Amino acid sequence: MATVEIETQLAPLRAAVKEFGDLVRDLKSKGAPKIDVDKAVVELKARKKRLEETEIALAPKEASFDRLKLEDLLKRRFFYDQSFAIYGGVTGLYDFGPMGCALKANMLHQWRKHFILEEGMLEVDCTSLTPEPVLKASGHVDRFADWMVKDTKNGECFRADHLIKNSIEKLLNEKKTSAAVRNDCEDVLARLEGFDDKDMHEVITRFNFKSPITGNDLTEPIAFNLMFPTQIGPTGDFKAFLRPETAQGIFVNFKRLLEFNQGKLPFAAAQIGLGFRNEISPRQGLIRVREFTMCEIEHFVDPDDKSCAKFADIADQKLVLFSACNQLDGAAAREVAIGEAVAKKTVANETLGYYMARCHQFLIKVGVDPRRLRFRQHLSNEMAHYAQDCWDAEILTSYGWIECVGNADRACYDLQQHFKATNVKLVAEKKLPQPVDVDIVEAQPNMALLGKSYKKDSRRIQAALQQLSSEDVTALEAELLSAKLYKLNVGPESFDLTPDHVKIKKYQKKVHVQELTPSVIEPSYGIGRIMYAVLEHSYRQRETEDQRIFLAIKPLVAPIKCSILPISANDTLVPVMEAIKKELALHELSYKVDDSSGSIGRRYARTDEIGIPFGITVDFDSLKTSPFTVTVRHAETMTQIRLDVPEVGRLVADLCAGRLQWSDAQAKFPAFESKSE
Amino acid sequence: MATVEIETQLAPLRAAVKEFGDLVRDLKSKGAPKIDVDKAVVELKARKKRLEETEIALAPKEASFDRLKLEDLLKRRFFYDQSFAIYGGVTGLYDFGPMGCALKANMLHQWRKHFILEEGMLEVDCTSLTPEPVLKASGHVDRFADWMVKDTKNGECFRADHLIKNSIEKLLNEKKTSAAVRNDCEDVLARLEGFDDKDMHEVITRFNFKSPITGNDLTEPIAFNLMFPTQIGPTGDFKAFLRPETAQGIFVNFKRLLEFNQGKLPFAAAQIGLGFRNEISPRQGLIRVREFTMCEIEHFVDPDDKSCAKFADIADQKLVLFSACNQLDGAAAREVAIGEAVAKKTVANETLGYYMARCHQFLIKVGVDPRRLRFRQHLSNEMAHYAQDCWDAEILTSYGWIECVGNADRACYDLQQHFKATNVKLVAEKKLPQPVDVDIVEAQPNMALLGKSYKKDSRRIQAALQQLSSEDVTALEAELLSAKLYKLNVGPESFDLTPDHVKIKKYQKKVHVQELTPSVIEPSYGIGRIMYAVLEHSYRQRETEDQRIFLAIKPLVAPIKCSILPISANDTLVPVMEAIKKELALHELSYKVDDSSGSIGRRYARTDEIGIPFGITVDFDSLKTSPFTVTVRHAETMTQIRLDVPEVGRLVADLCAGRLQWSDAQAKFPAFESKSE
Repeated sequence: MATVEIETQLAPLRAAVKEFGDLVRDLKSKGAPKIDVDKAVVELKARKKRLEETEIALAPKEASFDRLKLEDLLKRRFFYDQSFAIYGGVTGLYDFGPMGCALKANMLHQWRKHFILEEGMLEVDCTSLTPEPVLKASGHVDRFADWMVKDTKNGECFRADHLIKNSIEKLLNEKKTSAAVRNDCEDVLARLEGFDDKDMHEVITRFNFKSPITGNDLTEPIAFNLMFPTQIGPTGDFKAFLRPETAQGIFVNFKRLLEFNQGKLPFAAAQIGLGFRNEISPRQGLIRVREFTMCEIEHFVDPDDKSCAKFADIADQKLVLFSACNQLDGAAAREVAIGEAVAKKTVANETLGYYMARCHQFLIKVGVDPRRLRFRQHLSNEMAHYAQDCWDAEILTSYGWIECVGNADRACYDLQQHFKATNVKLVAEKKLPQPVDVDIVEAQPNMALLGKSYKKDSRRIQAALQQLSSEDVTALEAELLSAKLYKLNVGPESFDLTPDHVKIKKYQKKVHVQELTPSVIEPSYGIGRIMYAVLEHSYRQRETEDQRIFLAIKPLVAPIKCSILPISANDTLVPVMEAIKKELALHELSYKVDDSSGSIGRRYARTDEIGIPFGITVDFDSLKTSPFTVTVRHAETMTQIRLDVPEVGRLVADLCAGRLQWSDAQAKFPAFESKSE
Repeated sequence: MATVEIETQLAPLRAAVKEFGDLVRDLKSKGAPKIDVDKAVVELKARKKRLEETEIALAPKEASFDRLKLEDLLKRRFFYDQSFAIYGGVTGLYDFGPMGCALKANMLHQWRKHFILEEGMLEVDCTSLTPEPVLKASGHVDRFADWMVKDTKNGECFRADHLIKNSIEKLLNEKKTSAAVRNDCEDVLARLEGFDDKDMHEVITRFNFKSPITGNDLTEPIAFNLMFPTQIGPTGDFKAFLRPETAQGIFVNFKRLLEFNQGKLPFAAAQIGLGFRNEISPRQGLIRVREFTMCEIEHFVDPDDKSCAKFADIADQKLVLFSACNQLDGAAAREVAIGEAVAKKTVANETLGYYMARCHQFLIKVGVDPRRLRFRQHLSNEMAHYAQDCWDAEILTSYGWIECVGNADRACYDLQQHFKATNVKLVAEKKLPQPVDVDIVEAQPNMALLGKSYKKDSRRIQAALQQLSSEDVTALEAELLSAKLYKLNVGPESFDLTPDHVKIKKYQKKVHVQELTPSVIEPSYGIGRIMYAVLEHSYRQRETEDQRIFLAIKPLVAPIKCSILPISANDTLVPVMEAIKKELALHELSYKVDDSSGSIGRRYARTDEIGIPFGITVDFDSLKTSPFTVTVRHAETMTQIRLDVPEVGRLVADLCAGRLQWSDAQAKFPAFESKSE
C-alpha cells in the first residue's frame, strides 16, 4: 500500500531500526552482558516506535473517521456505556446495552461455531474465583503486576508509565520548554515502553515530576498486582483472586479432559468466560478494561510432533506477517502464505500456523478490515521465558495497532508448574514404535515395621516412597548403605528410615508407552477489543449532503438483522406487518419495528445508525397482490428490491449467513426505486 | 395423583397445619403483638414441613432413581465436577466439562430465544464488580447475610442452622437418646427454618452443642454477609463486591433503557450472567454454589396498570399452584388455569401471571417433568417487605422441592432506593388523558447576590434550591418570612439564606404527563439448579437384564445431538462417514464419532449414558445403494429406522427442534431391526 514517496520518507527510520536490530543480534551472539543487551533493546524499541508512528501518520487515512462521532453514537444508541454512571461511574467498567449485547452474543456464537464446533474442541466452563495456590503456581501472584507511584502525602496512586507520559506531554506543550529539554522528553517518550522501575524512577527524579493532582512528591515505583483479591468462605484465611485469564481453569482440568478424549493427543479445550484485571488507571474505552470476556483455546500436543492434520487445508492462505526479523531489520510487514512461513521456520510449527490462519478467517468473518490486520511476532525479550513462539493478531484502530489475539506456543510450562505445586502428574502417554526394556529401581517399604515405627504416618511414608524418582531411590540406597539412615521428607516433616524399613528392588520392565508432558498452543481472544475494532471498521459516512454516519456491520454479526418499516400508520398495513413478523420468526431472525411517525428517510437513518443491514418496507402497493409484497433495502448501498413476503425470511437468512450476497439478491429480484431518500 | 389411602394418612397433618394457619390469620387480623405472630409462624412452618415431608415420603417413587449412580455418571463423563480438585478442591465451586457446558449453553440459548427474542426484551450485560454504594442502596450490604457460629478456640466457622441440623441428626442416630429428647429433636428440626439467631443460640446452649471437629465451645450466632468483597484500583479505599444477583445492573441502567425504548412503558430488560454468593458451608452439589449463572428479567410497568397485552395467549394454560391460602389451610397444591387464578386474585396481576405461564413453558421445554413442578406462593412473612406477590417455581428432586425460579412483583422499591442514593430521578412519564393545571412553587435564587455571598458555592446552592420539593419551598418561604433566615443544607454543609437571596415564585402550569416510578416484575432463573433438576428428571434405567442407566435429555437441549457409529473399522465405510458429517454440519448439528473397537451395543450404551438422543449407524448395507443409507436409532426407545443419508440432516434437525416426534419419523421411514442390542 505504501507509495514510493512514503517509503523514501521511511527509509532513514528503517535504517535506524536496523542499526540497533543488528546491534542487539550481535550482542546476543557474542554473549554480551545482560545490561548491555537491555540498553540496546530499549533504544531498538524507541526506534521501532518512531518508525511505526511515522508509518501510521503517513498512511492514507480511513475516509472521514471521527472517533468522537462514533463514541457519541455508541453511547446514544446504547451499544455500551460506563457502568454505574448514576453513581458517578467506575473507570474501566462498561455495561453493554441491547445493541452491544447482541453484537457480542453474535460474535461469541460465531466464535463457538468457528472453533469449538468446527474443530471438535472440548468446551469447559470454570469458575472465576480461583484459590491463591493455583495462581501462585501459574506465576501470577509473583509477576502479574504494573509499576505505580504514590503521592507521598495522601497516598493517591498513579501508574508510573502513564504519569511520566502525561507529565512529559505537559512539558512539551509548554512554550518555555527549551529545545534541549524537548529532545530529552521525546527520547523518554520513545523509550518509555522498555523502562523498568529504576529507569522510571530516574526520569521522575531528573525531571522532578510531582503528583499532577496535589503537586506532592512521589514514591519510588512499587509493583502493584493486577489481580482482584477476595476470600472464599467466612474465616478470612482462604485467599482467592478473580482469574486474570481463563486458561488456568483448563490446565487444572487437564486430566479429566485427556480422559474425556480417551487418553489421546492432540486435543484442544476451549473456554469462553470472564477475565478480571485491576488496572491502575484504565483509559481507552473498551481497549483496557477491568472485567472482560475472553475466548481461550489450549491445544495440547506432543512436544516432539507439532504437525497438524488439517494444515494442508489452510497452507495457501496468505497472512500479513510482521516477523521478529522484519522488526529488527526495520522492514515492513509482508504478506506470506502460512505454509511458506512454517516451511521457512518463520512460524515455529504447523499447529501454531494453523491457528493463525483460522484466527485470520474468524476476524475477517466478523468484520475486521483485512487491510488493517497483521500478525506481529514477539521479539525474544517480549516473550515469557518459557514461550517458544508468539504471534499477536494486531488490528489498526484510531488508538494505533492494538493486540486483540495472542497466539502463543507456551511449551509445557503451565502443566509442569501445576504438577510441581500439587504432585499430581499431568502427562499423556505415547505409544512407543516398539516396546523398550527399562531398568526399574523401586523403594519397597516393609509395611509391618513401618507401621510399628510410625503408626498412622506409615501410609504417607509409603506414598512418598512410591513417588521417588529413580535418581532419588539410587541416592536413598547409597545413603542407607553408608549411613544406615535416610531422612525422608514428607511435606514439611521428615522421617528416619533404616535399612529394615526399606528394601531396594531392581528389575527390568517392558515398556510400551512413554509418558510426556504435552506442549500447549494457546490462542487467546479479547472479545471486547475485537468488537471495538469491528465498530471502528464499520464506521461509514454517506456521501450525501447531510453526511449522515452509519455502521456497516456484517449481517452475520449485526445486532438486529432487519427493520420493519410501515410507510404509514394506516391500519390496513397491519396484516402485512404480521405476515412479515411470522416469516422472520420462522427463520429466527431478529428485527426491530419502527412505526414511529418520522419520515421514512429519517427512520432509515435511525436504523442504519445501529447497523441494521436490511430494511423491509411496507407500502400501499404491498396490499395489491396475494401474496403481499414488500421492498427490502440494503443499508450499505441504499438500493432496494421488491419481492413476495413468503420469500423474505429465507432471503434475509441467506444474506445474513453469507450464503448469498446482496448482488445475488439484486440479480434475482426486480429493483425498486424509492422516492424518499 | 394422591390416592385415597395416602390422603387419609395426610388428613391429620393437613388439619394440624390449618389449625395454625387459622391462628396466624386470626392473630394478624387482630393486630396481635409481633412476637406472638412470629411464634405462631414458626410452629406453622414446622407443621407445613412435616406435612410436606410425609407427602413426599408417601408419593409413588420415581422408578429406581439412584442419586449416587447419577452423580457417578455426571462426574465420570465430565458433565461437571468440583473445581480445583488437584489442589484439594473448593466446596461450592464447580467446573463444567464438555457435556455440562454444552447442556448449559443449549439451555441458555433456549432461554434467550424463549424470552429475549420472542418477547422483544432489551438484553444487557453489566459487570460483576459492583461498587459498595450500589449494594448499600439495594439493601445487600446490610441484610444479605446468614447466621454463623465460630469455634471459640480456633475460629472455625459453621453455618448455624446446618450445625444444629447435623448435631440433632447425630443425636437421633444414637441409640441411647431417650424418647423425650428424640421428640424435642424432631421438634427443633421441624422448626429450624423459622429460627432467628436467638432461637438458634437457645438450642445450641440447651443441647450443649460443640464444634463437630474439635469439640470446642461455639460463639453466639453472628451475621455473615454473603457477598464476596474486593477493591477496585490500587488505593484500597474503593470497596466493591461481586454482585449477588444481576438485577442491580439493570436498575442502574433504567434511564438508558427507558430512552432506548423511546420512553414507553411497559418494557422488559433481561440479563444472563454470573452471580456470586459466599456461602458459609455449601452442600448439595449444584443446588447451592458460590458462583452461578442466572437469567433475570426486570419488567417495568405502570404501577396502576399491570395488565398484559399478551395475557389472552396463555390465559387457559394450567399450572399447579400452591397458594399461600392452600399452604395455611394445609391443602394440597391445585392445578388451575392462570386466567382463573388472576381473575380470582390468587395471582396478583396479569403480568406476573403471564411470566409464570411462560416460565412453565420454558421449564417443560428444557426437560423438567411437569408432574414434579409447582408454583409456590410466598407467605407474607417470607416476602421482602416491599414485595407485593411472589411465586417460586419449585421442582421436586431427590433433595426435596427446590426453588429454581422466583417470580416476584417487587413494586417500585429498587428504583426508589437508587433514586434516594443518587438523587437521579428514575421515573417514566405517562400521558394524562387530558392536561391538568398544577400549582407550582419555586425558590428562585438571586444569582448576583448569591455569587457575592458564596462565590464558587453559589452554583451548588442554586442546584439544591432547584431540587427542593413544593413542601420544602413552602417551609422555606415560611421560615424566610418569620425568621428572615433559612439554613439550606447542601450535602454535609449548610448555607444561610436571607429573603434577598431567594424569591418565591408561584404560578400555574398546564401538565400533559405524569411522572411515575415503574413497578418491577422480576422473574429470576437459577440455571444450575434447573440443569440439575433436568438431569435428575432425565435419569432412566433400562428394563433389560443389565439395568444400564442412561439420560433421556430432550433433544432440544441435549449436549450432543447424535452419534456416528461405524459397525466396523473397515476403510470402505469412510465415504459414508464423510457424507454424514457433511450432512450434519450443513444443519449445524453437533455429533460425536465413536469408532472405537467396542461392540456396537457397548458403544450405544456409552452414547446413551451422556444423553445423545440419536445414533447414526453405518453398516455394510450402507454402501449398497446410491445415495448411501444409514440407520437412525432413538436412544430412549432403542428403535431404529433406515433412510438415505441426504435425508438424515433435516430429519435429526426437525427431531431436535421438536418439529417432528420420533413416532412421525417411524411413520415416514421403514423400521430397522438391530441384531446387536
